[in-house]
Amino acid sequence: MKTKEEYIESMRKMHPELYMFGERVTNIVDNPIIKPTMNCMAATYELAEEEKFPEYQDVMTATSYLTGEKVNRFCHIHQSTEDLVNKSKMGRGLGAYTGSCFQRCVGMDTLNALSIVTYDIDRKYGTEYNKRFLKYLRYVQDEDLVCCGAMTDAKGDRSLRPAEQADLDQYLHVVEEKPDGIVVRGAKLHQTGAVNSHEIICMPTRAMREEDKDYAISFALPADTKGIIYIYGRQSCDTRKIDSPNMDVGNILYGGQECMVVFNDVLVPWERVFMYREWDFASDLVEKFASYHRHSYACKSGIGDVLIGAAQLIAEYQGTSKAAHIRDKIIDMIQLNETMISCSLACAYEGHKEPSGTYFVNTLLANVSKLNVTKFPYEIARLAQEIAGGGVVTMPSEKDFRHPKIGNYVAKYLKGAEGVPVENRIRVMRLIEDLTLGLGAVCYLTESMHGAGSPMAQKIMIGRRANIDRMKNAAKRLCGIERGEN
Amino acid sequence: MKTKEEYIESMRKMHPELYMFGERVTNIVDNPIIKPTMNCMAATYELAEEEKFPEYQDVMTATSYLTGEKVNRFCHIHQSTEDLVNKSKMGRGLGAYTGSCFQRCVGMDTLNALSIVTYDIDRKYGTEYNKRFLKYLRYVQDEDLVCCGAMTDAKGDRSLRPAEQADLDQYLHVVEEKPDGIVVRGAKLHQTGAVNSHEIICMPTRAMREEDKDYAISFALPADTKGIIYIYGRQSCDTRKIDSPNMDVGNILYGGQECMVVFNDVLVPWERVFMYREWDFASDLVEKFASYHRHSYACKSGIGDVLIGAAQLIAEYQGTSKAAHIRDKIIDMIQLNETMISCSLACAYEGHKEPSGTYFVNTLLANVSKLNVTKFPYEIARLAQEIAGGGVVTMPSEKDFRHPKIGNYVAKYLKGAEGVPVENRIRVMRLIEDLTLGLGAVCYLTESMHGAGSPMAQKIMIGRRANIDRMKNAAKRLCGIERGEN
Amino acid sequence: MKTKEEYIESMRKMHPELYMFGERVTNIVDNPIIKPTMNCMAATYELAEEEKFPEYQDVMTATSYLTGEKVNRFCHIHQSTEDLVNKSKMGRGLGAYTGSCFQRCVGMDTLNALSIVTYDIDRKYGTEYNKRFLKYLRYVQDEDLVCCGAMTDAKGDRSLRPAEQADLDQYLHVVEEKPDGIVVRGAKLHQTGAVNSHEIICMPTRAMREEDKDYAISFALPADTKGIIYIYGRQSCDTRKIDSPNMDVGNILYGGQECMVVFNDVLVPWERVFMYREWDFASDLVEKFASYHRHSYACKSGIGDVLIGAAQLIAEYQGTSKAAHIRDKIIDMIQLNETMISCSLACAYEGHKEPSGTYFVNTLLANVSKLNVTKFPYEIARLAQEIAGGGVVTMPSEKDFRHPKIGNYVAKYLKGAEGVPVENRIRVMRLIEDLTLGLGAVCYLTESMHGAGSPMAQKIMIGRRANIDRMKNAAKRLCGIERGEN
Amino acid sequence: MKTKEEYIESMRKMHPELYMFGERVTNIVDNPIIKPTMNCMAATYELAEEEKFPEYQDVMTATSYLTGEKVNRFCHIHQSTEDLVNKSKMGRGLGAYTGSCFQRCVGMDTLNALSIVTYDIDRKYGTEYNKRFLKYLRYVQDEDLVCCGAMTDAKGDRSLRPAEQADLDQYLHVVEEKPDGIVVRGAKLHQTGAVNSHEIICMPTRAMREEDKDYAISFALPADTKGIIYIYGRQSCDTRKIDSPNMDVGNILYGGQECMVVFNDVLVPWERVFMYREWDFASDLVEKFASYHRHSYACKSGIGDVLIGAAQLIAEYQGTSKAAHIRDKIIDMIQLNETMISCSLACAYEGHKEPSGTYFVNTLLANVSKLNVTKFPYEIARLAQEIAGGGVVTMPSEKDFRHPKIGNYVAKYLKGAEGVPVENRIRVMRLIEDLTLGLGAVCYLTESMHGAGSPMAQKIMIGRRANIDRMKNAAKRLCGIERGEN
Repeated sequence: MKTKEEYIESMRKMHPELYMFGERVTNIVDNPIIKPTMNCMAATYELAEEEKFPEYQDVMTATSYLTGEKVNRFCHIHQSTEDLVNKSKMGRGLGAYTGSCFQRCVGMDTLNALSIVTYDIDRKYGTEYNKRFLKYLRYVQDEDLVCCGAMTDAKGDRSLRPAEQADLDQYLHVVEEKPDGIVVRGAKLHQTGAVNSHEIICMPTRAMREEDKDYAISFALPADTKGIIYIYGRQSCDTRKIDSPNMDVGNILYGGQECMVVFNDVLVPWERVFMYREWDFASDLVEKFASYHRHSYACKSGIGDVLIGAAQLIAEYQGTSKAAHIRDKIIDMIQLNETMISCSLACAYEGHKEPSGTYFVNTLLANVSKLNVTKFPYEIARLAQEIAGGGVVTMPSEKDFRHPKIGNYVAKYLKGAEGVPVENRIRVMRLIEDLTLGLGAVCYLTESMHGAGSPMAQKIMIGRRANIDRMKNAAKRLCGIERGEN
Repeated sequence: MKTKEEYIESMRKMHPELYMFGERVTNIVDNPIIKPTMNCMAATYELAEEEKFPEYQDVMTATSYLTGEKVNRFCHIHQSTEDLVNKSKMGRGLGAYTGSCFQRCVGMDTLNALSIVTYDIDRKYGTEYNKRFLKYLRYVQDEDLVCCGAMTDAKGDRSLRPAEQADLDQYLHVVEEKPDGIVVRGAKLHQTGAVNSHEIICMPTRAMREEDKDYAISFALPADTKGIIYIYGRQSCDTRKIDSPNMDVGNILYGGQECMVVFNDVLVPWERVFMYREWDFASDLVEKFASYHRHSYACKSGIGDVLIGAAQLIAEYQGTSKAAHIRDKIIDMIQLNETMISCSLACAYEGHKEPSGTYFVNTLLANVSKLNVTKFPYEIARLAQEIAGGGVVTMPSEKDFRHPKIGNYVAKYLKGAEGVPVENRIRVMRLIEDLTLGLGAVCYLTESMHGAGSPMAQKIMIGRRANIDRMKNAAKRLCGIERGEN
Repeated sequence: MKTKEEYIESMRKMHPELYMFGERVTNIVDNPIIKPTMNCMAATYELAEEEKFPEYQDVMTATSYLTGEKVNRFCHIHQSTEDLVNKSKMGRGLGAYTGSCFQRCVGMDTLNALSIVTYDIDRKYGTEYNKRFLKYLRYVQDEDLVCCGAMTDAKGDRSLRPAEQADLDQYLHVVEEKPDGIVVRGAKLHQTGAVNSHEIICMPTRAMREEDKDYAISFALPADTKGIIYIYGRQSCDTRKIDSPNMDVGNILYGGQECMVVFNDVLVPWERVFMYREWDFASDLVEKFASYHRHSYACKSGIGDVLIGAAQLIAEYQGTSKAAHIRDKIIDMIQLNETMISCSLACAYEGHKEPSGTYFVNTLLANVSKLNVTKFPYEIARLAQEIAGGGVVTMPSEKDFRHPKIGNYVAKYLKGAEGVPVENRIRVMRLIEDLTLGLGAVCYLTESMHGAGSPMAQKIMIGRRANIDRMKNAAKRLCGIERGEN
Repeated sequence: MKTKEEYIESMRKMHPELYMFGERVTNIVDNPIIKPTMNCMAATYELAEEEKFPEYQDVMTATSYLTGEKVNRFCHIHQSTEDLVNKSKMGRGLGAYTGSCFQRCVGMDTLNALSIVTYDIDRKYGTEYNKRFLKYLRYVQDEDLVCCGAMTDAKGDRSLRPAEQADLDQYLHVVEEKPDGIVVRGAKLHQTGAVNSHEIICMPTRAMREEDKDYAISFALPADTKGIIYIYGRQSCDTRKIDSPNMDVGNILYGGQECMVVFNDVLVPWERVFMYREWDFASDLVEKFASYHRHSYACKSGIGDVLIGAAQLIAEYQGTSKAAHIRDKIIDMIQLNETMISCSLACAYEGHKEPSGTYFVNTLLANVSKLNVTKFPYEIARLAQEIAGGGVVTMPSEKDFRHPKIGNYVAKYLKGAEGVPVENRIRVMRLIEDLTLGLGAVCYLTESMHGAGSPMAQKIMIGRRANIDRMKNAAKRLCGIERGEN
């Protein structure tokens, strides 16, 4: 397993073709916009370091069933419901540690989904995807790599299927088959942590029909393979990381990252292809990945911990923490946050074993869990702003606070409760701004909404997975209607 | 273990002093108001019958750690988190089976709380309560008895402590100590299923101070002990069980029950006394019971199953089930219902072992779980009424429907979708009325609100049990404040 | 104008063919189930009596533009936005006075809708409906009559239009044209206050096409015309009015009423026909009536006043009224209630004059107003139950309270705050039960949901009436898109 | 009246001592951060120009009761409820026109509050404040000036009163009385539009006692008076106005502004002093201003119009606008938005005349109105993000879109529905980002929460102004409790 430092060093060796704000970025490690996001990814290594965080070992590491070696849990294939529960707890722990999206769960969820589906394809078609996949998995585990799981296509006109689009590249697809592999073209959008990854693993984004079979592909590539182009997403308050990296940025340590990833006729060698035109398994891969990934949103209750802590701090700093209505709001925030994690835990505990041996989460509860995550953080954020007060959006900048003349006024008139350094009050305010409007809000709110599928996707799955017939029969019996009757 | 029929027979032998609507009731088994409530209690026996419901064995029964015999889970002391999880599932299962409060969980929760606290008292004071309790427990298990757990006192002026009340009987207390036992006086309110019980077990209702020590008592008595008086609570639509037991009552099989129980100088023999003036353990007993009992509200997701099933049925019967907004509301109902059960499951899975060996639920999550239950059923009920339409409150009675002349009009003009008997539409409508306004609503709504403590009680516990310091430290670190600093 | 007593006397002369609980009811004035509902209707006369309630004169009465005489506002055609505002205030006032649906607004809204649409039909087709209508209106005003406005048909299979139904009577229609009038058949469901009315005025329930023209009819008849059959709806706790009319019924004075009304080949004389086969005006009449009637739900903020008052009282009676969380909940209830009435007021103030001279409400805001009413009362009711406590559903009956032996126990153990008669605490509890589960809840909750059209009907109208193009243009301009551009 | 251009020219002549991001700003007109905020203020002049916007004349202008001249409504003293209603409509209109806080209502509300309270002080104390004020008012009207109404003090330790603070400057106060005026010290925080103002008018921030009388002061000064220091607040995405003023900033025309304003021993001439130590009128001035200002939040329904329009556009651009769940969400947004404006309108229509002749809003409804504004925009924003999709936080920057190489990829893979230029899709996305996370969100969300007082302030006023006794009496009567009885 890599240390945090080793991970960052390994990133120095990666040379993806990256653009940001209209310019080519060659140093992805020291760029001030990227750095906090890479630190955030590095936290997934740091917390797994036994000497530094012995108390996190159970949660952050696991024993590979391939090698018997200790591996980072993000590279692990779940072997029990306990593994799934530890995944929930790892998510919350890292969410609280980084106050941000730490970006590595997508890869874990992709690996686990492929461990099931490659096995199932092989069973049906006698292919060798699972064997290939396990070889690849071992490489990922041995090298302790970050994999970017890439699912969401551009989609073009949403009322049309992939093969019906005017521009056939709106969904990633095979454009050529060669002796040494396949050539792919298209783009994956909203790719979290793409530039902080060693590998990128693509999957189809939806169910396919036979006519769409060129789109039914899954494969892995080194992230800096020639022909892959990364375009960095612009986000709320992103440039504060440049102009005011100390106080104004709020979360002074970590941040998230989103990219558009373009595949411009990229060659994928056969040993890295895990699905190829088995269109009838596309929906299964999507659903497996989506369920795992919806379960991963346990992390948001970790960010919730940070925001609740910040709200409590600002109340103490402003002398309002004992007011009944403030206490009540803090408890409301906790209630929402614990409800979120409870659903994630239940989803894990109620998991089961797939034919491949991998443990899979409860699909219904994965969707229930995620659907709550699309709403509750918004309410928690609103309450945090209510507790914090208007200063969240009116406070002068750090440079004003440090100014030789006016700094005194800032300090004098932002003074809160006795004994609290005014700087600390400002810092917490900025953290709340970050998590409710700034870069943190991107992770905590909008990503909670749309990551792992938008709310409607969860609703559709809930409609499918709930046992409505059982419910109808329960109702019928109680009011005197025969079971078989209309 | 008793069968359903044996339970009902055993009830015939009970002769509690019961009043209802101003009259003495002597036959508690055949009274039309009581009968559905007793059937409901009987369902806790029925589902445990192996021949009838083999699929429920794991959930409904357990192995006694005292005797190694199979016992009804309601008489069981939890020996693992799996036991706690099965308790959640038993609650949901019985909720869906009865569409009502089945009344037996209070006793189970009381027994489990006493198994912990009697042990802890003995450890501190060298008393023998646990030994007495285990003997009693064995009797309960061997005879497969229903215990009514009795906690809520009358409380009088709520701003005063027990010993400060003008009327000292506002909290149940010892009025005399005798060689053969203690004499108690007071009342327990809101006693669910009291008249359907073999035994009644009293506990203090709140934390006590030394001056309140006469109130710090716990004991068990046969429910028909002389001096105990039961006054039956009047509830929405109660008399429909008399005038229209077939269709209009909605749930034609089951119902709940609430009583005021008066202790009019009742003698409790020493072997049935489980706490006597150990005032410092009163709060512990309250909290243990409350946490167990808040966890028990898993049952409401079972009633939720019934109401969702009924809403889906009525939509189908009325030809609206395919409308997007109806489907959306059904999914919203499921989402709320599954969120409730998820919290209950998480609370169980995250339980732990107490010194006595009993497994105890996660207190924070028990409160989180119950607090959701105080809100979500109201929203589910509102959605059910929205789906059902105004007929829920305007439909003619069954007698009109059966009337030789106007029955035809009723049938003609309440006709819904082709192929659905109009009677079935009426039946489901009445079930929805029952669960949102009638006797079922008492169980599903108001009891969800106040049973096991009102919402504010849960909020207070959540405020106490959440680790706010951990959250504050997480926030501090991210915005650059030293851990020890203000 | 009639006095309250004169109204009741006038009802004695009415002999509708009425069935209730499977039996023919001939005395509609003294029947204990009907009486409180008739008292409630009578309150619309009582508050208009100048000697008794001089402060209500502006609100309850108006000057007829036909005769210049003072008339009850329920018989008035709105001549200004002030009239519309007074209608809002009359609704709230009567809601607070009766704690119930007072049933008379439907007729007022029907008269006003017809005053517009008959005028518009005449303008297009040169008919004489408006002249007929004004003659009828004068009769209604002179005699100060209650009109039951009847719109909702049985509808049968909701996916089919009227003329497509298997049973053509699922929508009320003409079955024969005679020299002296038309013969109609069908039924109107959910008819509020039907048995307390002098007249019944029918309207189509939906937009019609040419093939549906036999269904495009509107007419008025004396309520006890031969061939009209009334079947009384059964409602939550209805029979408590018989068995415990004093305390247990909660609202000891008033109640609502719903009937199924069957038209069994009834002859309507031509002078009472206000629309006949002008199918292209059906949707207009529906929309005019619906908008007026949605505006009428101002009354629910009056019932809200009662429930908030009851919640405040019970908190005072139980000694909890000063707790911060109780005060907070009372304010939340007020906030919801005042938001409802604000929308109703805005809807009235923003009204306008129609070609006929009648003032019409703002359609968008009428729907916005009503849509809030479909939700807020449920939340207010939930909060009232939270404040009240579990006694709402567990308290013994009045007969127990009056019982020579156990009455003392009931009184002793339900004692609340010092100085408050226990009977008053019970009375307020029962009122809260009534308004959240009982007969009052039928008016306050379910009728709020479905009366004047279910929520989806309001949503559709809001979607149609909001000026979304204006909003799109505002957005385009700000982000730099040309107005005409896509 | 000034034109938009004349206003901007007049600003060139203002030379306030302003700091931003640690630097002195001397050109307040052309600074790229300030410019959009000044344009926004200028819009209050532009819409009042008769030739440009004849349709806005009624709303944007009024006739001065001092001079009979036409004045900008922002300088007008309300002479009727129609004036108050037009104020609501002006707010919504300008909100929709600017998509931002246009900053000028605070001054209008201050002038109106002072017109009442100076009159009332004079009546009690025989002072001449009103005369002074009217002279000042005429100057403001004649010159068509922007006044910054300044209320919120720094407050220091919130548990202490002004005169009890360790640092006496935590509330703005008189430090010296001179022959020609008074010298004041302190600071006003969260000052909206301060740098865009000609004048600043201070008021006390809370009720005062006699010992606080040095804090009970109100006065007006030219905004660039020596000794007044402005420190510009830093806000989400503020520097995008510099780095990407075209597309990425979302709202490419307008923005808001917040400053900390320090009064460093500033001399106020007597003719500009409107309250001086009449501590018993401080609370009245606060309440009058607060009510007027809470009513002003009608503007947020104008911003709501923009966001709803943007959500509808993005749905059309992405081909999802016909999906039932999207339509439903758009209607939900409209419902919330129209409910907000309805409350504002009702508050205006229900206004009344004060002794001074000024029309004052309904205080209860002003608070009800504002309390909804503290919640509904958050939900509207959440729904807008749901409709928009994840691109809101993952899209590349404008510079990437304009880049010669990768611009093609951005355009190709962000292509939405046929016929929609991809640039337009990006523009609308950025506008939604702006209003939900960026500078627009500062105005639309956080300012909605805390402007004109935080939610708890509104709740307290609602508790005070609601007629709870009337409600209690209504409840008592219905359940049979005598009016005078407990």
